[in-house]
Order: sequence, then C-alpha cells, then structure tokens
Amino acid sequence: MAIDEVLADLKQKIDEKLPKGTTISSVEFEGPQLVMYTENPWSFADNGNIVRNLAKTLRTRIVVRPDPKVLVPPEESVNKIVETVPVDSAIANYHFDPDVGEVIIEAEKPGLVIGKHGETLREITKKIGWTPKVVRAPPISSRTVKNIREFMKTNHKERKEILKTVGRKIHRECTSKDQWVRVTSLGGCKEVGRSCFLLSTPESCVMIDCGVNVGSEEHMTPYLYVPEVSPFSKLDAVVITHAHLDHQGLLPLLYRYGFEGPVYCTPPTRDLMALLQLDYIDVASKEGGRPPYSSADVREVLKHSIVLDYEEVTDIAPDIKLTFHNAGHILGSAISHFHIGDGLHNVVFTGDFKYEKTRLFDPAVNKFPRVESVVMESTYGGVNALQPSLQDAEGHMQQVIKNTLQNKGIVLIPAFAVGRSQEVMIVLEDAIRKGLIDNVPVYLDGMIWEATAIHATYPEYLNNDLRKLIFQKGENPFLSECFRPVDSNELRQEIISKREPCVILATSGMMNAGPVMEYFKAFAEDERNTLVFVGYQADGTLGRRIQKGWKEIPLKTGKGTEMIHMNMNVEIIDGFSGHSDRRQLMEYIRKMKPRPERVFTEHGDERSCIDLATSIHKKNKMETRALTNLETIRLV
Amino acid sequence: MAIDEVLADLKQKIDEKLPKGTTISSVEFEGPQLVMYTENPWSFADNGNIVRNLAKTLRTRIVVRPDPKVLVPPEESVNKIVETVPVDSAIANYHFDPDVGEVIIEAEKPGLVIGKHGETLREITKKIGWTPKVVRAPPISSRTVKNIREFMKTNHKERKEILKTVGRKIHRECTSKDQWVRVTSLGGCKEVGRSCFLLSTPESCVMIDCGVNVGSEEHMTPYLYVPEVSPFSKLDAVVITHAHLDHQGLLPLLYRYGFEGPVYCTPPTRDLMALLQLDYIDVASKEGGRPPYSSADVREVLKHSIVLDYEEVTDIAPDIKLTFHNAGHILGSAISHFHIGDGLHNVVFTGDFKYEKTRLFDPAVNKFPRVESVVMESTYGGVNALQPSLQDAEGHMQQVIKNTLQNKGIVLIPAFAVGRSQEVMIVLEDAIRKGLIDNVPVYLDGMIWEATAIHATYPEYLNNDLRKLIFQKGENPFLSECFRPVDSNELRQEIISKREPCVILATSGMMNAGPVMEYFKAFAEDERNTLVFVGYQADGTLGRRIQKGWKEIPLKTGKGTEMIHMNMNVEIIDGFSGHSDRRQLMEYIRKMKPRPERVFTEHGDERSCIDLATSIHKKNKMETRALTNLETIRLV
Repeated sequence: MAIDEVLADLKQKIDEKLPKGTTISSVEFEGPQLVMYTENPWSFADNGNIVRNLAKTLRTRIVVRPDPKVLVPPEESVNKIVETVPVDSAIANYHFDPDVGEVIIEAEKPGLVIGKHGETLREITKKIGWTPKVVRAPPISSRTVKNIREFMKTNHKERKEILKTVGRKIHRECTSKDQWVRVTSLGGCKEVGRSCFLLSTPESCVMIDCGVNVGSEEHMTPYLYVPEVSPFSKLDAVVITHAHLDHQGLLPLLYRYGFEGPVYCTPPTRDLMALLQLDYIDVASKEGGRPPYSSADVREVLKHSIVLDYEEVTDIAPDIKLTFHNAGHILGSAISHFHIGDGLHNVVFTGDFKYEKTRLFDPAVNKFPRVESVVMESTYGGVNALQPSLQDAEGHMQQVIKNTLQNKGIVLIPAFAVGRSQEVMIVLEDAIRKGLIDNVPVYLDGMIWEATAIHATYPEYLNNDLRKLIFQKGENPFLSECFRPVDSNELRQEIISKREPCVILATSGMMNAGPVMEYFKAFAEDERNTLVFVGYQADGTLGRRIQKGWKEIPLKTGKGTEMIHMNMNVEIIDGFSGHSDRRQLMEYIRKMKPRPERVFTEHGDERSCIDLATSIHKKNKMETRALTNLETIRLV
Repeated sequence: MAIDEVLADLKQKIDEKLPKGTTISSVEFEGPQLVMYTENPWSFADNGNIVRNLAKTLRTRIVVRPDPKVLVPPEESVNKIVETVPVDSAIANYHFDPDVGEVIIEAEKPGLVIGKHGETLREITKKIGWTPKVVRAPPISSRTVKNIREFMKTNHKERKEILKTVGRKIHRECTSKDQWVRVTSLGGCKEVGRSCFLLSTPESCVMIDCGVNVGSEEHMTPYLYVPEVSPFSKLDAVVITHAHLDHQGLLPLLYRYGFEGPVYCTPPTRDLMALLQLDYIDVASKEGGRPPYSSADVREVLKHSIVLDYEEVTDIAPDIKLTFHNAGHILGSAISHFHIGDGLHNVVFTGDFKYEKTRLFDPAVNKFPRVESVVMESTYGGVNALQPSLQDAEGHMQQVIKNTLQNKGIVLIPAFAVGRSQEVMIVLEDAIRKGLIDNVPVYLDGMIWEATAIHATYPEYLNNDLRKLIFQKGENPFLSECFRPVDSNELRQEIISKREPCVILATSGMMNAGPVMEYFKAFAEDERNTLVFVGYQADGTLGRRIQKGWKEIPLKTGKGTEMIHMNMNVEIIDGFSGHSDRRQLMEYIRKMKPRPERVFTEHGDERSCIDLATSIHKKNKMETRALTNLETIRLV
C-alpha cells in the first residue's frame, strides 16, 4: 500500500472511532508520531481517553493539533494562561508556533502548569486552542540548552519537513518474505572506544552508537567504510545510548557523508551530545589536528534528532520498535530495547550501565516485556574486576583530600565533564557541608559547569533523592557556593600561579587533552599535590600510563616536547565508576526478567569481554559470546 | 601508483632482466596475466627459463606474444607446423588469431604437438612467430565444448577488452591501512543447496560459489540482496568450486544484475557449468516456471570466465591469490586455496570433495604451502554417516541389477548428469565386459551422454588409471557399445512402451525434474522393476520422500495431479557418493598439512554440520564452528 493510502486508511479508522461532535480535518506522519488536525481541540483535551484508546487500537503514537482556524490570538492567549495556572508556576517565557499550533511555556515549576494527569494543560487548550508544551526554566542557566532551544525554534519548518519524510519512511510497507535479524559489530568489541553496531533485518538497518576512540589514532574510527553501512543513505536511523564521545563522537560525520535519517536519543543525551561534539571539534583544532567534522554537521545532528523519554515505545522502522530505559551510567543514558517484527525477536543493547543506585541515578533497568538477546558492556567484566562500594569510595576520597589539603597541597581530579564530575561534586559538597574536609574552593574547569547546568535542566532524569533535594527542599547541591566554574584563562592562570590548597575537577577524564593538562604540567612536580583518578583509563591514554607508574612523562607543548617529572602522589579511587563492576554485571543478567537466551559481550578489553562471556555461560547456562569487530551475528 | 605507471615500471624491470638481443615492445595486463609483446618470440621460445625467471622475480603470471610484424602468413605456417609435429599427432583443425598472435591447434594427441617439456611447441614458434596453443580433439564429440570454443573465438575481441579491464583492476594499488579478512555466509550453511560465500578484505571482495537450491522454492536463492554483496558491481571476482547447480546455478543472475567482473574456475567446470545452466533454464521453462535468467546471461558468464588449471597460483585481486587443487568430487571440482595479503592469511574452501580414490578421480588434495582456516563441506558430517567402501558398493549394485534383470525387470537409476553417472557407467561397463551382469542396453537420458563427452575432453582431470585406459590402451570405457544415449523423445517412448529388461540412467539425480520422471511414472507401479539411488537426496526432493517410504506419490502432469502407486523396489546403494563420508571428512582434516588453526563447517543439514564441528574440535583441539547463513566471521 502506498503511504498516502495508508494515511487515508488511518483517517477512516480514526473517524469511525471518534465520539460524535469530534472531528479531524487531516492526518500526517511526523517522525514516529501520527499527527491529527482538528477543529475541536477542546473535545480531545476534555477526554484524554480518546487519544489513549486510538493509540492503543492503531498501535502508534498519536498527537492532536488544532486546526489554525480555532487558535485564540497570542496576546489574549497569554492572559488566559496566566488566569489558569497557579501563581507559583513562575512562567518565564512563551513561544507561539502557529505551524504546529503549539505554545511553548517555559516555567520554573512545569509540574504546576501541567497539573494532575495533565488537567491544567487540558484546561489551557480548551481556552486558547493552542496545544501547550511545558519546558523547565533551568535553575542554572545552560548556554547549550538555551542555544539548542533557539536553534530548534529557528529551524522549525525544516525540521517539520524532515520529520514528515522520516514519518513516511517509518510507516512504509514491509515487502520481504525472509525473516532474519543480524547484528554487525563495527567498533567497540574487545576494546573500549568507537562503539558502533548495526541491527539489520530484510526491511531495515539501524545503527546503535557511533563513537570515536580518542585514545588511539590507529583505531579511532569504527569500520564505517564496510558495505553493510556504506553509503550511509541505507541507514534507517541511528540510536545513541548516551552522550560520551566513545558512543557518539562521530555521529556528525554520518551527516557530513550523506546520512539524512533521524537520530534517536533521550533529551539530555541530545544536549550533552551537542556540547561534547562542539568541544571535540575545539580540542582537535587546538591540538593542530583536523577535526573530522564541523559545527555545521553538529547542527545537522540537532535538526535530525528525535528525543524519546524513558519507557516510550516508539516505531523507528517498519519492523522495529525502540524503547529506552534508565541505564544509570550518566544523565540520559539509556538501555535500548528493540522489538523486531511482530513478536519475532527482542534484543537489548545495554550501552554503558551502572547496576547500583548512585548519588545521581537509579540502578539500570533489567525488566522488560520480552527479551531474547542482550548485547552488554564489559568494562569491568574481568574475573577480578571488583569495585569497592560507593560508601568506601567516598570515604577514601575524603581521606585523600583531607591529607593533601593538610600538606598544603592541591588535589587534581581528571574527570569526564559528564557523569563522574557531578557525582564527585555531590560527594564534595556533602563533605564540605558536613565539615569532613576543609571549606576550600572546588574549581570546575572544561565544560564541567556547563554539563552540570544540563543536569539541573533535567531533574526527572536524576534519582528520587536528588530530585527531591532540587525540587522540594530548594537545596540544590549543584548551587553550593563552594563550586567555582573556571570560565576564563585568566582565572586558570591565577589558580596555577597562586598554588593555594584547593580541589580542581578538570577534563578530559583520561588526560589525553583538555585543561587538566595545564594543571597537570603545573602541579606534577610538587610532591605535596595529589592526582586522583576516579574513572576508567583506557589503553593508550596518559591516564593509563600514569597508573602504570610512568615517572618521566613527555608532553607536547608549543615549544616541542617537554619532559615532566612525576612527583605528585597518584591515587586511584575505585568505586566512582559509572560502570557496573564485575559483580553488578553478573547480577544484572542473573536478575534480568525475563531470562534472556543469549548474551553477547563488548566494550571492554579482550580479556574482560571473554571472561564475562565465559562466566555468564557457566553460571546461567546461557549461550554467550564475546563479539569481535567486523563480525555479523545472526539473532534469528 | 596509477596503473600505467605500474606497467611502465614493470616494463623497465623486464628490460633490465632480458638477455641481450631479446626485446619487448610493450606490456599489458590481461586478466591475471602480464602479457609482453616481442619482435623476437623465438628467443623466448628457445629459452623457457627467461619467462620462468621473470615470473618468479615479478611474482606474477607472464605470457609472451609475438609482435604482429614477425608472423609468418597462415597458409605457410600450417605447412611448417605439419613439417614439425609427428604424424601421429592427428591434427584436426587450426585457428589463427592475429589479435593475440596465437594459433589454436586441435589435435587428437596434443601431447605429441607439445613435445617433451614443450620442445615441439617452441620449435613451431621459432618457425612461424605465432604462439601455438594445443587443444584436444575430443574422442567423443561434445556439442558443448564445440559451441564454447566457437563462441570464444567469435567474441575474442570483446573478451580481450574484458581481460584488460580485469587485469588492470587486479593490479590496482592497495590503499587501506586496515588489515582484516572476513567470510560472510550467503547460503549453504546448515543446509545443502544454494552454496554462496563472500571472502572480503579492506581491498577486495570475492564470491565463492553462487548456487541454487532446486529442492526448495522458499530457500532457492542465496541471500544476494544483503548490502555486503548488493549491488554486485562491488565484487572483484567470483570463484566456482565445481559445476553442480547448488554451487553455480545462479551465477548468470549476477551478470544479469550488474556484475561485470571475472569468474574463475577450471576448464571442465566452465564447460559443465554452461551445460547445466542451459539445462536449468530449459527445465524451468518446461515446468511452466519463469527461469531467473536467460541464455544471454549464460553467454555473459562465458565471456567473463577465466579458466585456471589445478596448482596454478593466480592473482585474482590486489591482495588475494587463488590456487585450485583437485577435489575428487566431479570433473574439474576444485579445493580453492586463497592466500591473502603478503602472508597475512590462508583460507581453504573445500567445496564438495571426496577424500578417497574413485574410479574417476584421485583423492582430494589436503597439502598446502600454508593454511590457517578451512571452510569445509559436511554432507556426511553426522556421527553415524559412514559409507560402505566403493568395492562393496559396486558388489551391491551388481547384485541388485542382476536380480532385477533375472525377474525381467527394469533398473532405473536417477543420477546427476555430472559425476555419479560416469562413475556408475564405468562400473556397469566393467561388470558387463566381465560378464557379471547380462549384456543389456544401458540407456543414458538427459545430458548424461553430453556430460560424458566433456569428461572425455579433459582426461588430464581424471585419475591416472582411467587416463591410461583412455590414452595409452585405446580402451576408453565411455566408448563401450553397451551405452545408448537417449537423444530423442521417440527413443524414450520406445523404451517405455517396450518395457524390456535394461538399465536406465536418467537425470535429475534427486527426482525433482528431468526425464527420470517419465521413466518413474511408467515403471513405478510394476513390482519387477527397481529404483536405485546412488546419490545424496536432499530434504524436500521426491527422492528423499521415496527413501522415507512414501507409497502414494502425487505427481503433476499435463492434466493435473496424478497419484502414483509405488510398487517397484527401492534400493539405496551407499558408497557411490562424490562426497567424503564421516570418516573421510575427519581424516581429511587430521592429515591436512600444515595443520589448520580453525575449521568452519557448512553444506550439510544442521545436525551434520554441528556434529562434524564438534568432533573435529574434540579430536584435533582446533577451533571449530558450524556456520549460519547471513553470519560474517572474522579470520584476521
């Protein structure tokens, strides 16, 4: 059936189901959604069940939009909104978009604008015709979030066209008689970095992650030139599990070289991604390298992004439904569940995950409606890769900082801007507030503050305790005055020249670039100082070399290569990792509901991937295998 | 380096190595060969070592062609040739091709024209300038061979262009920094039929076999639409291991849909392939089906074919060398050895093979300069799939035929036209000559005679004993007068209506089509007759159903479906198979030199492939795996 017939058919089915007096003027696909235009938006608003029931019957996501005819003029609408919402809502801004009949309401307390089960929103619709969408006015202002929202507004028309094209492609007819499901490994197998997989069926082809290995020139890029994926026009969609560069750093490259389809991720992942991609370009340029893509390509990513919240079942191809679940690794990180065909197969790509409650997140989800195959990370999959408890790790960190500060030393913590930094910030804030360590400044350099602002924008992606702190008690730990963003080179040079006891959190997390290098050069030779590792250090990075005990460290400077004599203390504080340790990896699978049939391991060095696969096989009697790059396995 | 520079460079190197007085005017690639044009062909002819040494130094196959200036006119040349060769040579025909400076001499005894170590040939060259090529005047005239030789002559110019294009592509520069070797299964894994593999590296992509499963509509075609192989223009070459349809039946389809590269096979495989492809079209049309390709596509196959004899090491891609070795399965069947990169990896695709000396062939070769990986057939890979010795099988057959003839019955033997038929013919001829069975006519229906003629054309592909019979004693068993080709429908109907005791060998071998069906319909209900199976019957074929004991057999006729009551005797004579039995498969690997590291099994039902992989792993401590269709494995 041609797509226009499909739409006509859908409209007829909808017409038959609508209660009397409720009509729709037209229907269209927009991305994974079916959009219905109506002259009676209030009857839909009045009866939330209409859309819910339709969605259930038609097995697709449905959005109702008012026909332009019924919209109340913007000025009048603002007055009616103010009348309707509680005063505490603290509305900061309005944006009316006549193309989609939407009004974006930016509020400090979006929950109040929404009301119980969306009651207040429906009230607003009834009064003004416009569909209200509520976004949070961030408690810490994020440049990234602001820019992205502006960009999306500016490019709304182009985006609408893109979404229409994507929508029609998703809902195309399936034509193949064959049934099979394959997974091709393009990167990140028996290694960490450049994660990239293809999930393909006779109908569709979806890429999962598209990372860059920043620690290796030789193995920087996934195998993107093989015929399974090249040319990129054959891809239906890309799914990004989380925003770290080793999972998405080369996504803009796909758009640069011909990909025109959608990228699916959670809202925080989209924002963090843009931040990290632009920084990647920046770092590459500064190091005299040629970045593989430009900011124009990053903008293409944004234009083609379709954000999905956790637990939203979404059609992303004619025969593939995607559902994200919390992965507990970093903000917005997602366990990605794919339902293929009409009950043919279910495969879960874990991406990176933490199966333990942390200061920031709930543990990763491992309950699904169905699951037969699992592709899982194995960073700490080695038989002895056990990590201390978070409590022990926090104690260890307090002790190390306390000792260093007592010796008038400086504590330098290389950290990923996204994830570990915020975890450590909360631990430090807690310790300073409780007087467990001296009230010294905690400097945040290299995007950490900006990443933190993005965290504050999406509290619904944090765990309950932290969300309560931010929402209900007004005790947002990120706003503590101990934190000092380093927002200029002057401040950085001042910190370096003063050499006063303090804590510095700086990127990059594996010491292969970023401002951490300047602090390291300045402080490495003083034995009073301490370098504290809180995250995984991949092979080939400076971080890994220092952990191995290198004492003479050659560093490139403007003037050539300089030799750094390593006198500062080195402390490795395990337990802060955003990755599950060996025990958590094993438990994650053992307790998975339902029990999967097969488990494939990836994202770990060779030994770790093989160890984990072997152990899961022995303990759970499941078929397991450590994947190899460039292999294709058959799931069905 | 551009290809013209490569050629200039080669010419310079050659010039430096040539002895004084020997010069070349130009060099060009033609297929895998380097062609040198010279005004002094006689100096090359005089000194065979020049070319041998050059080939060694340049590591490529070299051909010398005379510059047109130095060619003696054809009529004069014929006289000089007749002067030079022994009278016994029995030259039947000459064909002069000025394009390549070659004269094709068709002789009944080509060995005499060639002379010891090519002495006589060199003598001829010296006298006439032309390069003599000797082909055998077949002792039984084969329509196929004749037509193909004519076709190749007629299309010589186009072929030359094709070979030039292929040659330049083979010798292109390698550009990738990555090193990997992958094998993708497109068909014939955990099943028999539609064998098809891809061998790929960052530089090149070679298909091995392209079969059709004639016993299944649903699984008829390999997965040729997946991106690894589609569009076909990305293929560097196709290699065909032997001529049976399940290994090459869809080769013309590749040319129909855009493939323009070469197909490599042995000379008998090329001829048998053409015969079987044309018959496949014929059978499909007769059954009212639509053949997937036409005879024009078969002609494209011929135009693009490059034949290689056993043991000729040949560049088929910038980083892949192919060598065929005897496989003992059918005429021209080849174990295909691939040397990849500069010593990077060696993988052997066995195709179908027999690791035992038979009436027709020597046992399959399992000694190689190097081998790390083996992809092997598993038809009889099941733990209990042992076959009787050939001697026992022959005894069994004599007994069955003797009994049936005594009861005035007819013996009907469904057989592949190629392979089993000739094996059985020799057994029957031997038994009749020795008086072990009555001297009844042995009817050969459905291309068996034509296939036999092709066997007689290539005695060098048969084993020593049979070759001696044909060559030296003039006792060619294929020429025995007991054999009666059925070359008309009248004769067929006469045999059917007379119902006199006789033996009938008829295709197809699995009773899914062909003249055997007519004999079967006529003779099935008479209990005096016997149906004798001598080959493997795949799942889904009528042969397999009869073996399972079906007594009421529905057969499609012109008038609808007719029910056949099966009263004739059924005898399964194991031991004639062209496949190695379980013990031979195990021995083939155990005795392989050098010892391979990994063995992958395919071409057998699921149980057989898994059993064989398991047993080889246990016995030899090698890594093994039963391949699955649509998987890609990584060898390096």
